[in-house]
Amino acid sequence: MRLIDQHCHSVVHDDLPDPAFASLLTESDRPPADGTSPWDSSLGLAVRRWCPPLLDLDPYPSPGDYLDRRRELGPAESTRRLLRGAGLETCCIDTGLDTAAGAALLSLDGFATASGSAVREVVRLEQIAEQASPGSSAATWAGQVDAALAAAVRDRRAVAVKSVLAYRHGLDITATRPAPAEVANAASEYLSAAERHGSLRLDHPVLLRHLLWTAVDLGLPIQLHTGFGDPDLTLHRADPSLLTDFVRAVEPHGVPLVLLHCYPYHRQAAWLAQSFPHVYCDLGLTLGHTGLGARPVLAETLELAPYGKVLFSTDAFGLPELYVVGVAAFRDAVAAWTAALHATGCPAPDSDRLAALIGADNSRRLYGL
Amino acid sequence: MRLIDQHCHSVVHDDLPDPAFASLLTESDRPPADGTSPWDSSLGLAVRRWCPPLLDLDPYPSPGDYLDRRRELGPAESTRRLLRGAGLETCCIDTGLDTAAGAALLSLDGFATASGSAVREVVRLEQIAEQASPGSSAATWAGQVDAALAAAVRDRRAVAVKSVLAYRHGLDITATRPAPAEVANAASEYLSAAERHGSLRLDHPVLLRHLLWTAVDLGLPIQLHTGFGDPDLTLHRADPSLLTDFVRAVEPHGVPLVLLHCYPYHRQAAWLAQSFPHVYCDLGLTLGHTGLGARPVLAETLELAPYGKVLFSTDAFGLPELYVVGVAAFRDAVAAWTAALHATGCPAPDSDRLAALIGADNSRRLYGL
Amino acid sequence: MRLIDQHCHSVVHDDLPDPAFASLLTESDRPPADGTSPWDSSLGLAVRRWCPPLLDLDPYPSPGDYLDRRRELGPAESTRRLLRGAGLETCCIDTGLDTAAGAALLSLDGFATASGSAVREVVRLEQIAEQASPGSSAATWAGQVDAALAAAVRDRRAVAVKSVLAYRHGLDITATRPAPAEVANAASEYLSAAERHGSLRLDHPVLLRHLLWTAVDLGLPIQLHTGFGDPDLTLHRADPSLLTDFVRAVEPHGVPLVLLHCYPYHRQAAWLAQSFPHVYCDLGLTLGHTGLGARPVLAETLELAPYGKVLFSTDAFGLPELYVVGVAAFRDAVAAWTAALHATGCPAPDSDRLAALIGADNSRRLYGL
Repeated sequence: MRLIDQHCHSVVHDDLPDPAFASLLTESDRPPADGTSPWDSSLGLAVRRWCPPLLDLDPYPSPGDYLDRRRELGPAESTRRLLRGAGLETCCIDTGLDTAAGAALLSLDGFATASGSAVREVVRLEQIAEQASPGSSAATWAGQVDAALAAAVRDRRAVAVKSVLAYRHGLDITATRPAPAEVANAASEYLSAAERHGSLRLDHPVLLRHLLWTAVDLGLPIQLHTGFGDPDLTLHRADPSLLTDFVRAVEPHGVPLVLLHCYPYHRQAAWLAQSFPHVYCDLGLTLGHTGLGARPVLAETLELAPYGKVLFSTDAFGLPELYVVGVAAFRDAVAAWTAALHATGCPAPDSDRLAALIGADNSRRLYGL
Repeated sequence: MRLIDQHCHSVVHDDLPDPAFASLLTESDRPPADGTSPWDSSLGLAVRRWCPPLLDLDPYPSPGDYLDRRRELGPAESTRRLLRGAGLETCCIDTGLDTAAGAALLSLDGFATASGSAVREVVRLEQIAEQASPGSSAATWAGQVDAALAAAVRDRRAVAVKSVLAYRHGLDITATRPAPAEVANAASEYLSAAERHGSLRLDHPVLLRHLLWTAVDLGLPIQLHTGFGDPDLTLHRADPSLLTDFVRAVEPHGVPLVLLHCYPYHRQAAWLAQSFPHVYCDLGLTLGHTGLGARPVLAETLELAPYGKVLFSTDAFGLPELYVVGVAAFRDAVAAWTAALHATGCPAPDSDRLAALIGADNSRRLYGL
Repeated sequence: MRLIDQHCHSVVHDDLPDPAFASLLTESDRPPADGTSPWDSSLGLAVRRWCPPLLDLDPYPSPGDYLDRRRELGPAESTRRLLRGAGLETCCIDTGLDTAAGAALLSLDGFATASGSAVREVVRLEQIAEQASPGSSAATWAGQVDAALAAAVRDRRAVAVKSVLAYRHGLDITATRPAPAEVANAASEYLSAAERHGSLRLDHPVLLRHLLWTAVDLGLPIQLHTGFGDPDLTLHRADPSLLTDFVRAVEPHGVPLVLLHCYPYHRQAAWLAQSFPHVYCDLGLTLGHTGLGARPVLAETLELAPYGKVLFSTDAFGLPELYVVGVAAFRDAVAAWTAALHATGCPAPDSDRLAALIGADNSRRLYGL
């Protein structure tokens, strides 16, 4: 089964100290509680299960033995082996993050060379807006930002844009496009707060909405973080059902909306994908993070989601291990699902075609890859 | 196992063009996204699995071959075979919808003849109210509507009434009975909006509440749509837990409340059915729509729901295939559940009795069938 | 596997009439609907499966035969056999409830003698506050209550405190510590309402918040009821995600927060436990109540929850049977989970260590047992 990873991030190219490595095995950005380790988790076990054979170890070494072997090979060779082991045809990389656990990420070219995968870019709306904000005023902010977004999308040949509204505010926003005066007023508030706090972090709901509507004008598929992530978000405010009015408002424009991750609201996301022609969904980091849960979680998603609307991604970030784990968990879960279909008499060509849709063909069609 | 379908709809009696047939395989009322087909879904596979043998085909023909055979037999014979194959003892038909995919539905008599099932009627509150509204005024609306509801229930020997509050507003309403002056005021708003927009669609929350309380006075079980449905609703506003205050307000009246469908909030519905003596739940269209998910979804419902409070229904609509699929998915899921009970040592007479409760006996008791 | 029950209640020491016994097999405090029995439920079947062998019966006797045998042995002997059969090393008993189904509960000493388990106490915030309120005024309420809480924790050598905010208001509260003037004002409202209604039941959201912050000052782990329970709560307002802002506010204080029960929001609770170092979760009564669902529900929790943050409890109340069922369901679900890990190649020492963490070692570390 060929795989297109429709949403992922680059990986660290230097060796990480043990605690920094472990910190990328959890969505938490806090140190672990006393007496606990991020390795003792579904994701930790999944890394110990799937990755060691790519570094010539048997499955389930101790974390220490695994990290020793990784260092023995060196980060470049380990990264190369792991990414190539993931075997992805194309990676659509969200470039909104530059570092992981304080270490720099591979450039897109570096990632392509290491992985052997084709690489396409996903542009993060809030990042571009923050970079374009200095020097703007209430009156010029929207124009400056819109121009920067259009340029980023064009210059980087982006296949999609990405919104982190779930982190910056929650998905419970007003659906409609904000009027220019409302945007100018909000920009004024944002710029003066930015000066006051020395931070350009964009979390004004009106401006976040403005970015979404600028994205609608650009016409590329819009990927939206939904469901779990790091503690910067509040989970129930990341329920994709909260986006329903926005989904309805965008529908006449025909711009695809891609709900990322979605867990534990993946059944809700699946209903949205069934209900609205322009809505798609993936499970992102969920499959790698949930370990043995990958099978039921994929099955739950495929209860209501049309098979032509579910996409594959790893949402891998920082560690090449997360690519390996995301791919392995997906392949395993899809194999379990198709085996269950076969047991009902479904012919293999049918279930193979459906698996291929989800693994790559839906993304190929949606993003024109 | 005998089955009573406690909530369903009639079916189309004419041959449907292929796209119209496919449009009844999804809850969406929109055309499918480019490059996708409603057949590529859990429900599409379920139809291809369970229905063809009733039309002398092997399971899993292509959609084209299935529709060819269906036309060869003609819609009347296909409908007859499919409905009789479903083998339902009694169908409680919600007559609130007259057409499906633009085609007329069989009359209740026509349905009874085709299916060989006993037929009873469920009266939809909002439909009766809309039909009774013309010619009313703010002062007379409530009286006219209440009289029409009482007459409909009496003349049609209805076994239950049905509310689509979830579609028209969401389940997050004030719980208490609105005062007459509040109703009159709301009726005035509704009637002038109806004239302005040329539509009698009733979505005023005060009037929707009034209908529910009129139904409480009538004393029949009240079926309430909850959970997923077509894109007219917003999913998180259809969480049955939002009805809790209404459930409490109705409790002293002893009128049964039947939560329909419920997915993906079926665990919440099950808790309500455990907590409140007058609350019941079903899974409706969920079992047919979720395919391989029918087993876990039924099992999840039976985690907390008392076995004396879970009802069976198909919520089939438009296509007789949806009766076949709803029944087959339910029988399969119940069989898996009882097999799991047996594996723990539970005697067969026990599990058979429990399955019979859910399949028919609970409805027989609740509706006096 | 040794087990520490980190949240439970005492049990009745007298024989109960049949309906009273049955009433403890459901979270509902209402009589069952006509024609239904609490025995026809996942919990009813679980009691018939796991308990009879401890009273020398085969599994799955009729409820009547089971109760006959129980009476033949007498309540003291039955209780002794059942509690010892549960085999708990330590029970952390919430003493906030004195009776069950109208009958008195065993004292902590009585429970320790009957069970052979070590017993530690969990102090319920609202109960202590209600007992300390008489004789207070708006100005003195907070001081009196805070002193009573400090004394209760000290004198009883409590290992934790417990909040029933979910029952008294819902988890959707303001996160921050209320100012003294706000507390005094709320105390005034509470005390005059208490006098008016002749009830000290504490449900003022400001005072409930005050209790939580007093508990933060005391420094013991705070157990919070979340998820399902009896009909006194509204389920969607018991979603632990609603506590997120409170979780953030407590984080700098380092006081552990233990989310109890959590179902059907256990995946949300698991995310909180992954995200925040001071958050822990258990499944409490869920495993006993969900029967065959215990395996998937535990597995769903272990998707995201770090294995060092999940605790075991039965939340047993009133019937010693609920200890047996809670333990058996947990052991069975853990065994299924570790078997699934083994099937992926995970070595037995690893999975045994993880099971031991959840069964006892995490509680031992958290509560210093």
